[in-house]
Amino acid sequence: MDYRKQSLIKHAEWRGKIETKVRVPVTCREELSLAYTPGVAEPCMAIHADVEKSFDLTRRWNTVAVITDGTAVLGLGDIGPEAGMPVMEGKCALFKAFGDVDAFPICIKSKDPEEIIKTIMLISGSFGGINLEDISAPRCFEVETKLKEQLDIPVFHDDQHGTAIVTTAALRNALKLAGKRAEDIKVAINGAGAAGIAIAKFLLAYGVKDITICDRRGIICEGGEGLNPAKQEIAKLTNLSHKHGTLADAMKGADVLIGVSSANCVSKEMVASMAQKPILFTCANPVPEINPDDAKEAGAFIVGTGSSEYHNQINNVLVFPGVFRGALDVRAATVNTEMMIAAANAIADFVPEDKLSREYILPEAWDKAAHTAVAKAVAEAAVKSGVAKLAK
Amino acid sequence: MDYRKQSLIKHAEWRGKIETKVRVPVTCREELSLAYTPGVAEPCMAIHADVEKSFDLTRRWNTVAVITDGTAVLGLGDIGPEAGMPVMEGKCALFKAFGDVDAFPICIKSKDPEEIIKTIMLISGSFGGINLEDISAPRCFEVETKLKEQLDIPVFHDDQHGTAIVTTAALRNALKLAGKRAEDIKVAINGAGAAGIAIAKFLLAYGVKDITICDRRGIICEGGEGLNPAKQEIAKLTNLSHKHGTLADAMKGADVLIGVSSANCVSKEMVASMAQKPILFTCANPVPEINPDDAKEAGAFIVGTGSSEYHNQINNVLVFPGVFRGALDVRAATVNTEMMIAAANAIADFVPEDKLSREYILPEAWDKAAHTAVAKAVAEAAVKSGVAKLAK
Repeated sequence: MDYRKQSLIKHAEWRGKIETKVRVPVTCREELSLAYTPGVAEPCMAIHADVEKSFDLTRRWNTVAVITDGTAVLGLGDIGPEAGMPVMEGKCALFKAFGDVDAFPICIKSKDPEEIIKTIMLISGSFGGINLEDISAPRCFEVETKLKEQLDIPVFHDDQHGTAIVTTAALRNALKLAGKRAEDIKVAINGAGAAGIAIAKFLLAYGVKDITICDRRGIICEGGEGLNPAKQEIAKLTNLSHKHGTLADAMKGADVLIGVSSANCVSKEMVASMAQKPILFTCANPVPEINPDDAKEAGAFIVGTGSSEYHNQINNVLVFPGVFRGALDVRAATVNTEMMIAAANAIADFVPEDKLSREYILPEAWDKAAHTAVAKAVAEAAVKSGVAKLAK
Repeated sequence: MDYRKQSLIKHAEWRGKIETKVRVPVTCREELSLAYTPGVAEPCMAIHADVEKSFDLTRRWNTVAVITDGTAVLGLGDIGPEAGMPVMEGKCALFKAFGDVDAFPICIKSKDPEEIIKTIMLISGSFGGINLEDISAPRCFEVETKLKEQLDIPVFHDDQHGTAIVTTAALRNALKLAGKRAEDIKVAINGAGAAGIAIAKFLLAYGVKDITICDRRGIICEGGEGLNPAKQEIAKLTNLSHKHGTLADAMKGADVLIGVSSANCVSKEMVASMAQKPILFTCANPVPEINPDDAKEAGAFIVGTGSSEYHNQINNVLVFPGVFRGALDVRAATVNTEMMIAAANAIADFVPEDKLSREYILPEAWDKAAHTAVAKAVAEAAVKSGVAKLAK
């Protein structure tokens, strides 16, 4: 099926993938007097006395903003704020369907990180959490970091952490099948934008020690010229042997290649140069770094992609509904590394041992039970790590 | 019933008066591929090519932001942004129930008009309309005026125009019963905040010629000292005989008193000093300017209040769902005076001749057919006045 053509037709029919639903009766004077004036004055004054009550007396406890500036929408690039909205709206639908989270899509008409941060700060009292989406690197790092510093509700840039979590979940199961341990492997990452850098940081937190990350110009090396601050930072934590060279050099002898870059930049020869039982997560969208059949011919042990056309889709739809469901359930003040590791493990461990195979390393994204498992793990990790305002 | 106490209990049970509803299937790979990636890229690119398509391919066409800064919530004053949210959420529920409009509540943590304007501008691409709410005067005038100048979607400050429209609707029917004409009457208005000034301006547009408006210090007179710009402007249009004095002086010989001020500031003597068949809309909340029974004893012909406890509640719930429904249906670029007059007339004329009486001058707020009539009239007026982007 030509999904894109069909999707345009469907979107024109749907005219919106979410809508508002009324939860209270408003059919007579008495009901109006409770849900609206004059009765509503009392919950207002209760929140005035204690702003935390906004989580009990309005929908704030369950409401997440899905916010973009439209600068890095899917693989389409900077297409503008309004043009990003079909993705945001779709995400809101998935938030509700898989996490029972009430999410609302917002696009911001600015590319200035300071303006974006300020805007989100000013409207943050309306929400229980902030999901940042499709904001281009390196601006997305500043936006997320500053919001996390200033807000006491979860802030989560899905392109970074959603991708890092689901990739790590896939890796956990792939390593199990390959009989390797995270701390022993060599990982090459191609792509040093939001996803690539977040994956590298998260894998380090997860216990991987040897990571080499490449951008368009090749291996990133500490002290390299022309690196933005985010790349300078990751350069200090990766490529500890200070290699120089291309992606081909980075892949030589590597156990894992994670591609979040561009189509067809990996050859069969490069796959063949990797360690035994190589794992390839070639997630460039819509066309992967190497065709999965070619990768397997060249010796790939496990291949995952970003696409639903092949086995092992590495899809961050598996992450955000459960992460926010769990965080909201215990009113977590943030989403920390402990919660993200719990999410990655929960996703991986949701695949039953007897189903786990080289062609089935992740749950299906539409399996609601998987999301419930993630939510539970995230909530527990939030409580355990001391960031939950409510005990579950 | 003690609505306020009961309402607090209900709000704690409800934990939100609206929620998100998913409008599309997302139960398998194919469905996800249409509603989300990869299919969603196509509607994104269609909007990138023509931003107007955001009204066809997302829910924008039906989505209104209900925005406050929490500075003038009900009669409670400046209680803070989050504390205003139960009102905003209630309003969103009414938008959906009566106008089938998808409304979303947003509070802004700033009292600076420039910041509020900027924030709304930056998020406006997410919405088909902006309903401003409970922003204190005179800041609300600047916020609304500047947004209307800059945005090509409807911007409507309900405390001003909703109140003006429903009050004028009530007046239309009251004058019919009293056998008077708008152009002949003398109107005294008490209160020169958002509502009072908007009512005065709207009545002038509606054909009333003789209006005197009072603030706390008495009759507002052109050139008076200490008047903010909004009062200076209205002073030029009202009190053409340059009277000085108190509210009591303004009410002498007046056909109509409209109170949007404070409890118990009108005496029976003041009512007795009015013209024959005096009409009193004493809308101070929760306690009116004079008790309706006292007003009637003193000779009032028709009394309306802001409260549901008496006959003739003058409630702007009758206005905003239909105004936005009508404006959205024809994608009006603004809400202009023609549309507002159409709304006032439609509300008044919805009361059948045989039901119209001194104790029944307005439809019930929960009568959905009344809202539908308002929407139809507003859409027609938008088309006729040339601000509709779609013909209905």
